[in-house]
Amino acid sequence: MNLNPYERLDDLQIRGLFIIQDTRGFCFGTDAVLLSDFADVKKGAKVLDMCTGTGIVPLLLSAKTEASHITGIEIIDSVAEMAQRSVLYNKITNIDIVKGNILDSAEIFGKGVFDAVTCNPPYKKAGSGIVNPDDIQAISRHEILCTLEDVVSQASAVLKDNGKLFMVHRPSRLSDIFAALKKYSLEPKRLRLVAPREGKEPNLVLIEAAKGGKSFLKVMPTLNMYNADGSYTDEVLGIYERN
Amino acid sequence: MNLNPYERLDDLQIRGLFIIQDTRGFCFGTDAVLLSDFADVKKGAKVLDMCTGTGIVPLLLSAKTEASHITGIEIIDSVAEMAQRSVLYNKITNIDIVKGNILDSAEIFGKGVFDAVTCNPPYKKAGSGIVNPDDIQAISRHEILCTLEDVVSQASAVLKDNGKLFMVHRPSRLSDIFAALKKYSLEPKRLRLVAPREGKEPNLVLIEAAKGGKSFLKVMPTLNMYNADGSYTDEVLGIYERN
Repeated sequence: MNLNPYERLDDLQIRGLFIIQDTRGFCFGTDAVLLSDFADVKKGAKVLDMCTGTGIVPLLLSAKTEASHITGIEIIDSVAEMAQRSVLYNKITNIDIVKGNILDSAEIFGKGVFDAVTCNPPYKKAGSGIVNPDDIQAISRHEILCTLEDVVSQASAVLKDNGKLFMVHRPSRLSDIFAALKKYSLEPKRLRLVAPREGKEPNLVLIEAAKGGKSFLKVMPTLNMYNADGSYTDEVLGIYERN
Repeated sequence: MNLNPYERLDDLQIRGLFIIQDTRGFCFGTDAVLLSDFADVKKGAKVLDMCTGTGIVPLLLSAKTEASHITGIEIIDSVAEMAQRSVLYNKITNIDIVKGNILDSAEIFGKGVFDAVTCNPPYKKAGSGIVNPDDIQAISRHEILCTLEDVVSQASAVLKDNGKLFMVHRPSRLSDIFAALKKYSLEPKRLRLVAPREGKEPNLVLIEAAKGGKSFLKVMPTLNMYNADGSYTDEVLGIYERN
């Protein structure tokens, strides 16, 4: 196992899986774990994970679902290569990591071919002018190389009819999210807010949209991450244990 | 004070206000109380309450805000007349009840004249074919005489630039709500889910939208109505006490 000096190997605590992460860059967080749990991936499904980064979502989905195949697409060469090494290290055969721009997804994979698309995209609007476009952390967090509309438009193109997009994002972007989904014929079907604790403002939203679905949104109970004493809530412990 | 045999006079428990309600019809509920609390009506504001029913929202707003004037519009003659009697009974001088169709709002009141519009509209889509169009309860609950799009389009027309729409609705309609707001240049600015208790699915959503606003949505902490023992939560007690 070859690790670069700035990399570390982390135990995912699920079926003996490990993941390589760049200690200088963007390490996976709660968002990816919650997204993998929220994504209702069916047996035999073909899945595309956009903005896959370290490959955390494909790794978790391969462990906890019966997806037939999961593809992760990542634009930054060094990050895609690191994700590829994690797949190889874990000897997983149903994950491919593709180096590429999600804007080319329909061209690379074809239209109407996936049952599910997952995405943990950059949350923040670009254009503040402060971020450095060569900074991997900045690219992971700001809409520099891919916008919300890029994700949604390409997800719609590569999904089969009634295929599902599962995304995690910031609640402050909900209006943009609903507008983009509508524009590309993805109907929001399930939504869950995630708050640090009861009575606090939610800081994440999980959303499921169906290509060509009818308008009826199931809003799930708000997920509180922590109890008042700072320990994880039972539901979050359950999500981590299911990982 | 003349009450019809099927009517009752209820104490609103705020500044000595009373309301006349038709015991056979739709009596005001938690929705109206939460909407009146959520509506951030400024001093001196001109307010229109659409689908005003018994006039509960204008009555509460007149008691708890410094609005200069509140108009309630109601399509059913007998209900509008009952609301009018409540206003007279309470000797309130800054509320008008108008008998009319909200679809004619811009024609009746003019365009760009209100600082705020409130609405507790019928929640359910019409078209099931089961409801009786002469049934006041059915009209209050189903989109028979007014749809979500009617409310939003007319609210947009009568609001000043940057005027606010405050609405209470069902979370299952959120996708329709966001689409309608977008269509009529009302930007969602603040959203709050209301759940029966912690860990339960929300059954109401409060939403504030600004005419011509920028896209940034503040999602508030989810409001839980009851504690595990069935008593009101402190925050709900606070809302009722502020009434």
